Amino acid sequence: MKNTDWLDTIEWNEQGLIPVITQEASTRDVLTLAWINREALAKTVECGEAVYWSRSRQKLWHKGEESGHIQKIVDIRLDCDNDALIYLVEQKGLACHTGRHSCFYQQLQKSDKVEWKAVDPVLKDPSEIYK
Amino acid sequence: MKNTDWLDTIEWNEQGLIPVITQEASTRDVLTLAWINREALAKTVECGEAVYWSRSRQKLWHKGEESGHIQKIVDIRLDCDNDALIYLVEQKGLACHTGRHSCFYQQLQKSDKVEWKAVDPVLKDPSEIYK
Repeated sequence: MKNTDWLDTIEWNEQGLIPVITQEASTRDVLTLAWINREALAKTVECGEAVYWSRSRQKLWHKGEESGHIQKIVDIRLDCDNDALIYLVEQKGLACHTGRHSCFYQQLQKSDKVEWKAVDPVLKDPSEIYK
Repeated sequence: MKNTDWLDTIEWNEQGLIPVITQEASTRDVLTLAWINREALAKTVECGEAVYWSRSRQKLWHKGEESGHIQKIVDIRLDCDNDALIYLVEQKGLACHTGRHSCFYQQLQKSDKVEWKAVDPVLKDPSEIYK
């Protein structure tokens, strides 16, 4: 009988999802915030690479399956409310589809007005990532 | 006229919320995953301390208002989809209501079975935090 207690511990939301923060183990940079369901988490643990639930495509999304930019799992953490995870990973290539290291490249700046500015560089042309 | 373009940029969900990852600036530890609405974010930027929306209490929650464990804002980042934030903060005291440094203290461990284990220490008795 397969033990699924560890999956039952999680407080899945009304869509059966929870958010997962993906953090690079070496730099401790936060790379992405994505979503997972039970199946995505079970697959992540089984294969040792980050698998998410794509809310836009409504299907499992093995990160890097097209781009080669996989995320090898180093550690998985659950929070005190059992409703959010951290995947600590080794990131191959780039985490962001814009060709940046992290998805969190827009910084809030206050000068004359408050605005978001893209402050991190594009390291690779996205058209070269998704051929 | 008050500029609210930077708030309008954000893709608030159907409840008017987005998740925010709070990361300690000095250690780069991820401390919490919480939620904000427009008002919480506006107040955070105005006062320079983390303000969230408490989904359980359905009200604004100025972190540390009871415990003194405030989070001073160092940087705010928005992701590529405009639907998740990072608050980079200086944490006074402890982030977690269990008396731990971070809320993400449960680690997935695989031995005979897969299970979550609390691996980070309780640094302060919660009854001493919330008097």
